[in-house]
Amino acid sequence: MTIEELDTPAVVVDVDVMEANIRSLAAYCKQHNLSLRPHTKTHKIPTIAQMQVQAGFPGITVAKVGEAEIMAAAGLEDILALRLGELARTCKVTVSLDSAEVAEGLSAAARETGSTLGILVEFDVGMRRCGVQSASALVELAQRVEKLPHLRLAGISFYPGHIWAASDAQGPQLEQLTLRVQTMLEATRANGLNCEVVSGGSTPTAYNSHRVRGLTEIRSGTYVFNDRNTLGVGACHLEQCALRVVVTVVSHAVSGRAIIDGGSKAFSSDRWLSGEQTGFGLIPEHPAIRFETVSEEHGHLDVTALDCPPRIGQRLTIIPNHVCACVNMHDRIYLHRKGAIEATLAVAGRGKVQ
Amino acid sequence: MTIEELDTPAVVVDVDVMEANIRSLAAYCKQHNLSLRPHTKTHKIPTIAQMQVQAGFPGITVAKVGEAEIMAAAGLEDILALRLGELARTCKVTVSLDSAEVAEGLSAAARETGSTLGILVEFDVGMRRCGVQSASALVELAQRVEKLPHLRLAGISFYPGHIWAASDAQGPQLEQLTLRVQTMLEATRANGLNCEVVSGGSTPTAYNSHRVRGLTEIRSGTYVFNDRNTLGVGACHLEQCALRVVVTVVSHAVSGRAIIDGGSKAFSSDRWLSGEQTGFGLIPEHPAIRFETVSEEHGHLDVTALDCPPRIGQRLTIIPNHVCACVNMHDRIYLHRKGAIEATLAVAGRGKVQ
Repeated sequence: MTIEELDTPAVVVDVDVMEANIRSLAAYCKQHNLSLRPHTKTHKIPTIAQMQVQAGFPGITVAKVGEAEIMAAAGLEDILALRLGELARTCKVTVSLDSAEVAEGLSAAARETGSTLGILVEFDVGMRRCGVQSASALVELAQRVEKLPHLRLAGISFYPGHIWAASDAQGPQLEQLTLRVQTMLEATRANGLNCEVVSGGSTPTAYNSHRVRGLTEIRSGTYVFNDRNTLGVGACHLEQCALRVVVTVVSHAVSGRAIIDGGSKAFSSDRWLSGEQTGFGLIPEHPAIRFETVSEEHGHLDVTALDCPPRIGQRLTIIPNHVCACVNMHDRIYLHRKGAIEATLAVAGRGKVQ
Repeated sequence: MTIEELDTPAVVVDVDVMEANIRSLAAYCKQHNLSLRPHTKTHKIPTIAQMQVQAGFPGITVAKVGEAEIMAAAGLEDILALRLGELARTCKVTVSLDSAEVAEGLSAAARETGSTLGILVEFDVGMRRCGVQSASALVELAQRVEKLPHLRLAGISFYPGHIWAASDAQGPQLEQLTLRVQTMLEATRANGLNCEVVSGGSTPTAYNSHRVRGLTEIRSGTYVFNDRNTLGVGACHLEQCALRVVVTVVSHAVSGRAIIDGGSKAFSSDRWLSGEQTGFGLIPEHPAIRFETVSEEHGHLDVTALDCPPRIGQRLTIIPNHVCACVNMHDRIYLHRKGAIEATLAVAGRGKVQ
């Protein structure tokens, strides 16, 4: 079967590109003596998690306990869960947290199941989402964790989700980040707290991770496929975008417009955060077409710049703004090499919202 | 089991409110001699479609063939599919279209399965998405449909998705709409074309449908649950909002903020289109809290207006901006009466993107 034979909308992944992305970041991490713990929220597919693990690093990251269960059932053995939840008993589980309340809840849950949970204390590095704000708060929480039964303090974590500058323009932010990490590291060491893991790293900062002194591990997720946001921030090239959504033109009754059979329920309505916030995807083969709006099941293309608008039934392939949100809309994705479909993978962790 | 015992994030529906919504629009349609053909894209759940059908009208609307199959398998017998696709052989299927290419494709597909498809020719009423632009184009396409084997011209359709004024301020737009419908109706009749069905209607215009002369059927979907957009446009009251997402506060390490365990993968990232485009949901019990941003798995609440910020572990219930997109993120929803869970329903049509 080829891509041309798939019903649309369909998510297709170029395996050659994906494999190159996986190899490339793994090689970078080995070169710089960093661990790589890919965030599997991007795909939620055990088969792809296994491909990432086979690149040389045993650990993965998940957002939800439901996702952890899916991954553990598929044999993934070292999971960093970023949020509180039930305990996985079949694999090594580390949890990132920022409050005593959550630590106490986890300790109680681990006692019930007779297991031990690794804990990373999270600190904020400027995104203002999660994470303690000061070194003293970090030390206080780490000391609390050390005293709680069934918990093992493994280190500290952060998420530099606010850094969206192009890779070669990240210098000042990376220096600030290093200072922040150093402050936290020194405070934990000065208090005799274990800090073998310093976990950070996003896709936009992935290949600059060696510039953040003290870092031992990164948790990049999007790098496996890349998307329009990664492109927009200059963190990948077009040929590193492994995933596209194949769609079909279904109407051009309105002049200057073409309507495709995928909208917010195929792409998500996530914006182009690394660009001008406009448009819902990039159509590399037809850069003059603007993907201007999404309804639930329709994509609205502005084709006024074309001399000859696309015909009804014509297929287009589109790189979504945010690939993690896009994959999450689909029951399955298709792996292909040069257009020949090699495998159909269920998005097994999808809908595991708890 | 009660709502309090559910893991979060969880979508809960107040059955009393939902039943009242279903009864109310059905009663309105009966009073005005209109058919009601609810758009089931809002829930994608056969059980709820059956409740809507039992309110007195046999037909439903779906967006995708995959959804039609789910509904047909559950015994729903009269389906208006808004897009091209494979034929349902077990029930009456009507398809809305706006091009000869799609009509020809449907005719060929119906020939293969030996079935007959009802066809509505769609015209644009100002949304500029799908639909022929002129009465002459409508007549030309309807005549083409009449000549194609295995198709039966049933009438005309439109979607007034551009009308978002408050119900009592829709007058001028409804007059324009009536003129447009009359023009199309007269053109079809003047050419001796069958036009027993004139299908239109959205949730914001639902209770004004009797003011659109010539209309025979409406396809409202969102009315079953309502949401922040419906509220914002004044098309429902707060007590008519049947669905909420239950979430838990998981972090308040950042001052002025509380982080909940649901983000774009629990609510969608759809904006508040009927309001100031800000915020991702309404928290009726805590109107001073602003739900300002979503990450994939985190919701970011601005709690600076509160004297006492919510504690970790505290639950909140939130009305999403766009309920159709929200339900589509979940594997299941919970029906309750006064907090007691009555049923867990799988969102069976979810992920049927084709």
